[in-house]
Amino acid sequence: MARIRPPEFHPALLVIDMQNGFCTHGGCYEKFGATIGADINKYRKIIPNMRKIIDVCHELRIPVFYTQQVREASGIDLLTRLHRIIPKKRLEFLKIQACVRGTWDAEIIDELRPTKDDHIVVKRRDSAFQDTELELWLKGIGADTIIYTGVDTCICVENSIREGFNNGYDVILVEDAVASSWPELHKATLMKVRGSFGLVLTTEQLIDMLQTTKRGASGFRFSTESL
Amino acid sequence: MARIRPPEFHPALLVIDMQNGFCTHGGCYEKFGATIGADINKYRKIIPNMRKIIDVCHELRIPVFYTQQVREASGIDLLTRLHRIIPKKRLEFLKIQACVRGTWDAEIIDELRPTKDDHIVVKRRDSAFQDTELELWLKGIGADTIIYTGVDTCICVENSIREGFNNGYDVILVEDAVASSWPELHKATLMKVRGSFGLVLTTEQLIDMLQTTKRGASGFRFSTESL
Amino acid sequence: MARIRPPEFHPALLVIDMQNGFCTHGGCYEKFGATIGADINKYRKIIPNMRKIIDVCHELRIPVFYTQQVREASGIDLLTRLHRIIPKKRLEFLKIQACVRGTWDAEIIDELRPTKDDHIVVKRRDSAFQDTELELWLKGIGADTIIYTGVDTCICVENSIREGFNNGYDVILVEDAVASSWPELHKATLMKVRGSFGLVLTTEQLIDMLQTTKRGASGFRFSTESL
Amino acid sequence: MARIRPPEFHPALLVIDMQNGFCTHGGCYEKFGATIGADINKYRKIIPNMRKIIDVCHELRIPVFYTQQVREASGIDLLTRLHRIIPKKRLEFLKIQACVRGTWDAEIIDELRPTKDDHIVVKRRDSAFQDTELELWLKGIGADTIIYTGVDTCICVENSIREGFNNGYDVILVEDAVASSWPELHKATLMKVRGSFGLVLTTEQLIDMLQTTKRGASGFRFSTESL
Repeated sequence: MARIRPPEFHPALLVIDMQNGFCTHGGCYEKFGATIGADINKYRKIIPNMRKIIDVCHELRIPVFYTQQVREASGIDLLTRLHRIIPKKRLEFLKIQACVRGTWDAEIIDELRPTKDDHIVVKRRDSAFQDTELELWLKGIGADTIIYTGVDTCICVENSIREGFNNGYDVILVEDAVASSWPELHKATLMKVRGSFGLVLTTEQLIDMLQTTKRGASGFRFSTESL
Repeated sequence: MARIRPPEFHPALLVIDMQNGFCTHGGCYEKFGATIGADINKYRKIIPNMRKIIDVCHELRIPVFYTQQVREASGIDLLTRLHRIIPKKRLEFLKIQACVRGTWDAEIIDELRPTKDDHIVVKRRDSAFQDTELELWLKGIGADTIIYTGVDTCICVENSIREGFNNGYDVILVEDAVASSWPELHKATLMKVRGSFGLVLTTEQLIDMLQTTKRGASGFRFSTESL
Repeated sequence: MARIRPPEFHPALLVIDMQNGFCTHGGCYEKFGATIGADINKYRKIIPNMRKIIDVCHELRIPVFYTQQVREASGIDLLTRLHRIIPKKRLEFLKIQACVRGTWDAEIIDELRPTKDDHIVVKRRDSAFQDTELELWLKGIGADTIIYTGVDTCICVENSIREGFNNGYDVILVEDAVASSWPELHKATLMKVRGSFGLVLTTEQLIDMLQTTKRGASGFRFSTESL
Repeated sequence: MARIRPPEFHPALLVIDMQNGFCTHGGCYEKFGATIGADINKYRKIIPNMRKIIDVCHELRIPVFYTQQVREASGIDLLTRLHRIIPKKRLEFLKIQACVRGTWDAEIIDELRPTKDDHIVVKRRDSAFQDTELELWLKGIGADTIIYTGVDTCICVENSIREGFNNGYDVILVEDAVASSWPELHKATLMKVRGSFGLVLTTEQLIDMLQTTKRGASGFRFSTESL
């Protein structure tokens, strides 16, 4: 278990890459993801938990950030422009026009559609922090703790956790609100977070902690008592 | 297996955190690392392979970069200054004065001591790229491919791979020249690199590839033939 | 004069912040910019030169990047969220809803409207490189030299030049295709670029250099002969 | 004048590039700086003011950061490795072995020698923030406001101000504790800071503000009253 040091936390929710292309029937992963072993059913399973978490965050006025992984139609940002060594299966997959900016494929799924008060971070690579305004926005609202949800646990979620942690943001990973197509790697991410980076909670534990925590003058007073 | 697209590669060797504190008897990990499960014997086992790789790189004039993870004696860079959520065991470990800049603990181990032609990158966090001059130097010498070796596979090596890859540097991970205290996480890193980021080679395969590859006008002509 | 070292250059054109808010009648600068001394007439004067440069770049297949400075309607990215010391006049100006994402104010001006082959970089702060995908895209197309145009010379143009130069990109500043509301500061930027960062050319010199330069196998062979 | 919004400020002092090479008789600038118009006498003039400011900061326990601009003896970080367009005079100057890491030339000048409680930031390019641990350290101590001093006003000082401001750090520039070899550019920097980035104070005003400001529970309560 991680140690939580009082007094006040300013959490923000991060909803990573819950886009049609990755999570909706008819999207690029359902059609072509088999090559790399992508399994949208695993991704779709977490939608109800994510819905609950987003609702609670809205209710408690915890800011919600969605990332949207996009590619340009022009192909300027393709990995194959920069890399000459690429795992074969991934290379197959890269031929697909996945989550091109402006297409249905790139949009956040209907079930979790952002409200006008939520924030969208367009990203090009794995980490939500890389080359985006995310940190500037977190600074702007004084957030210091990130609740991580979304897909894929072992790639974009883990990259964001590693970069966020190393830049000073506390980590809460919601184990049943993140999903991976690769169960061993999902498990490895949880193990690593538990060992090195922060808290791993279930959706229920998270919601309970958020709802029962006394909210102080400026933030939440998390404690380990309820865990 | 990863696909390699010719023609010419400009590799650089990265030797991550092979410091007394982590890898030498009498260093901080041997004395206090038990709390977090650190096992210096696992780290020491890769020293002979790393020695071979470094020697071959010197011989073939492949540039060699060492990272040196340091803490300030003043404690200004302590994780506990920024984080209030820290896994308990890691928190215990953070009480130790590990690899303080300027101490024996922070120095590269004798067995792999850098020559005056090698480059040292002092780092503060997990990734060799974070807040360091590494990318500027790689650009300066035109390196496009990084050979990753050192410790710990699942933390500093993996963070460096993820950040390097996402910034456009091709990845070659040498599986018996990286080590982890946590065998499952070591395995998970290899699996992830094979699936998403690049090549995983043994020391023997790497050396063979480097020595037999025809060196072109400006770089190595790697091919997948020999793999 | 700057020294140009052959052989081949891979230029990209950067068109900075030529948006309705800053450069079109009816935009936020015309309406409220007087507080900070903004003068859209100075900005509008460079439009014909920029038009010519963009046309030549399209003709010679030099990639064109437009930056678009935006604010969120939510105000999450306002300077006043982070800063408590702000020059008084600028503070007045910050009260205006300038170049809010998705509004007419934020759009690139009609006279320079991007084609579908051009690239748009949405930015939040002064430099085109800060927290944007620009460098990743430049790497993706192998660009090494940036032709700087747009507004305001002393803020967003100069910040981009400084950050671009310090990350290794060669600088060509087109003195009559950048504009500032503050003539002394415009002059100071030109002087600094001439002294420290790169080439300062007129539109005519630039176009002449681009059109007469022999294009090699992979890039332009600029020389100082024509300067 | 800039508006200061209460309540509490956490200032840090930044002493930029006050090294033998740039500021001491016998250093590289005195010997070879004439090519680029460098004038160490201008730099030496601010030493007494800087001394006073550093002393006051020590007394009031305001953290002090020194930057140290270095080059590698190996030349791996030379601008000429990355740039093919370089202003002629600067190119001449680049032939000199200036402020090589580990040499007397690179050391902070005797008059301002850091104490063991001060912090040293080794930098490779113009901005104190680029590729350094500075922001991580500022976060670690909760600093939000930077007092800028040192040389050269229009290059390293201004780059640091621009990058610091755009990342959310409040700016106080001490006009008689920064110096430039180029008087017009010095003036332009002051004008830009006054118009866009923050406060410009004299050494006397700064010391007065620091000494008379009531220090609150956690920071200084600056006000504009004394200005």
